[in-house]
Amino acid sequence: MNVRGNLMPELNIIVQKYGGTSVGTPDRIKAVAERIKTYTAGGHSVVVVVSAMGKTTDELIALAAQITKKPSSRELDMLLSTGEQVSISLLAMALHEIGIDAISYTGSQIKMITDGNFSKAKIESIETDRIMKSLTEKRVVIVAGFQGIDTEENITTLGRGGSDTSAVALAAVLGTRDCEIYTDVNGVFTADPRIISSTSKLKEISYDEMLELARLGAAVLHSRSVEFAKKYNIRLHVRSSFNYEEGTIVMPKEEMMEKFVISGVTAKRDEAKITIWDIPDQPGIAARLFSIMGQNKLYVNMIVQSTGKDNKASISFTVLKSDLDKAMGLCEDLNNELGGTAVEAKKDIAIVSAVGVGMLSSYGVAGRIFKVFSDRKINIEMISTSEIGISCVIDEKHADLALKVLHKEFIEAEQQ
Amino acid sequence: MNVRGNLMPELNIIVQKYGGTSVGTPDRIKAVAERIKTYTAGGHSVVVVVSAMGKTTDELIALAAQITKKPSSRELDMLLSTGEQVSISLLAMALHEIGIDAISYTGSQIKMITDGNFSKAKIESIETDRIMKSLTEKRVVIVAGFQGIDTEENITTLGRGGSDTSAVALAAVLGTRDCEIYTDVNGVFTADPRIISSTSKLKEISYDEMLELARLGAAVLHSRSVEFAKKYNIRLHVRSSFNYEEGTIVMPKEEMMEKFVISGVTAKRDEAKITIWDIPDQPGIAARLFSIMGQNKLYVNMIVQSTGKDNKASISFTVLKSDLDKAMGLCEDLNNELGGTAVEAKKDIAIVSAVGVGMLSSYGVAGRIFKVFSDRKINIEMISTSEIGISCVIDEKHADLALKVLHKEFIEAEQQ
Repeated sequence: MNVRGNLMPELNIIVQKYGGTSVGTPDRIKAVAERIKTYTAGGHSVVVVVSAMGKTTDELIALAAQITKKPSSRELDMLLSTGEQVSISLLAMALHEIGIDAISYTGSQIKMITDGNFSKAKIESIETDRIMKSLTEKRVVIVAGFQGIDTEENITTLGRGGSDTSAVALAAVLGTRDCEIYTDVNGVFTADPRIISSTSKLKEISYDEMLELARLGAAVLHSRSVEFAKKYNIRLHVRSSFNYEEGTIVMPKEEMMEKFVISGVTAKRDEAKITIWDIPDQPGIAARLFSIMGQNKLYVNMIVQSTGKDNKASISFTVLKSDLDKAMGLCEDLNNELGGTAVEAKKDIAIVSAVGVGMLSSYGVAGRIFKVFSDRKINIEMISTSEIGISCVIDEKHADLALKVLHKEFIEAEQQ
Repeated sequence: MNVRGNLMPELNIIVQKYGGTSVGTPDRIKAVAERIKTYTAGGHSVVVVVSAMGKTTDELIALAAQITKKPSSRELDMLLSTGEQVSISLLAMALHEIGIDAISYTGSQIKMITDGNFSKAKIESIETDRIMKSLTEKRVVIVAGFQGIDTEENITTLGRGGSDTSAVALAAVLGTRDCEIYTDVNGVFTADPRIISSTSKLKEISYDEMLELARLGAAVLHSRSVEFAKKYNIRLHVRSSFNYEEGTIVMPKEEMMEKFVISGVTAKRDEAKITIWDIPDQPGIAARLFSIMGQNKLYVNMIVQSTGKDNKASISFTVLKSDLDKAMGLCEDLNNELGGTAVEAKKDIAIVSAVGVGMLSSYGVAGRIFKVFSDRKINIEMISTSEIGISCVIDEKHADLALKVLHKEFIEAEQQ
């Protein structure tokens, strides 16, 4: 993507993205218009990206399902992109109604060019001329999120949550660092408030922590939008459109004021564990196994390989529960061929993770976690670590307890 | 519009337009796909124009009304055009599902260029390259009706019923004379079947009769589509998508096999009559009156001016009932200024009309109509005639009777 730096600093551009709940009803759309008005009154030039209203996208998918079980991805993108087009026109009307000049643009109209991968297209470039012209005419510019066009003007979509990415890409090409992501929660929390009552909102979080949290099941932001923000150094302010509280700013870790050892804990319950016992411990077996998984479009998350005696190894890994039957079939075929002793599946697991940039400069975090678990008799079945995160596969029945003790021992203790 | 004649006769192109009821549900869309399949199997290259599903357009207008009473016409067009975009994608999916290759295009994608008059735009040109390429690839081409773009790529719409015009324009630029308009009635009838039980379907009707019927309240086709068809010599086959019966072909009168004196009778009940008595009979008064009406965007239909004694004239004319109060106010102002004696409004009128190309070559039709009315004691308050039509303003309570006697004396008698 071609980024030219801040085009016109005097415009004081801010990009705001409003999610489906934020524009879910005509009244919500009017509330969003009022919020935008506070920014234009404050001297900002506002570029707004909106998602489809409420459950529109799901409803359109359900409509297509009444026609065919396998919709062509080009036609599905043609269909789904209408959701955002409805929102942008209504928001423009709501702004006009309160005396704010505004104009809406589809992805096609601002030449939001993507590759041709329907339903998961990647943004390649955005033309800024038309947006800049409208901004200099003192108009609020409203852009349909989630959608673009390929070089042949076919309509493409960016995948679920893609409006976040549209917003970050616009901030990047318009040369502003300020991008607000409005959603129905107050920001990024240290844990799921439905499980941990003492959870608290983070003021700041780094890109890498946010990506790790997203990967581990905390779905506040579209991962690609965070990668984009990191690449183009955009500060993402994740906040609620239902109040005026400050939310959480996703930023470079170098700019963060406070760095906790652990910023958040998550539990992912949609995966199952497969173990292949006692296969020959020779080079290429793991590669073969996981390339078979890849060829069959099975998403593999955690992988642990252990060497046993007699040159035999065991491999454990996790797949989505919905993919378990398919994955087991493939594993059994491979196991028979290789002469392994058994393939075992376990469904009732959870992946409990702790994420924090502070881990980079702290020693013994893993040890402290294992101690906390063992004190509560929580057995760890698999462990995997990254630079800023530790994930443990445990029995699903212990997941809530594990989250609570991690949150108490690390986050609550540290914040005091 | 630039029309180059039949581009590739070997493609055997047919243009079909399906209205909102015809694609009102997923099941209806599947039925339309099956119908299209009979044409592709028969060796036709099919270009399909579709309207929005069922009441979608009304629902979208109601949604906008929840935001603002006066939506900007640009943003309203942005909103409304999504309705057709939903239909085209679903129809493409339905065709794929039964093994027919198909591709959908928005107005923007086929460069359906219009002027910039949002909500009532006029088509200026259509690019045929992309359509022709898809047709030569043996694909059914599905085009969103009702919508286009202006030269700055703003989305425009053609006004109510505009999909008919989209279809005719496509037939014209693709150089085919065959355009089928699928609707929820079996064709064009000699009278409204809800009033005249003995009404019959016309096999053929001329462009001018169709235009006259449309003007006089029989709203089967969008008038502009008929004007387009006349200009480009397209034969419009108006028929039902709910059965395989032949409908009515709208065609040049020179090609018609049978020409009835009167092809159809209509009653229009949404107008009211205003009479201004005894205004000075001097040049320019009528011009002044009707330019005032025009400036105030009041649609005036029938006008009769009669000269009285003492250089005084009376003017009667009809306006929409919904405009009556506004029109009366303007007339009273003018009447006061000119010293007329009174302005009178009458709401309970109907305009009963008979239309037929046969009138051109028949004498005494008007006289026969007046005789028929007077035999039934139906008083005629105003008369206006065109080349192929006669309209009479009568008391609304006599409207059904007037239709019945006209239908019996002219249409039923002649068809026997």
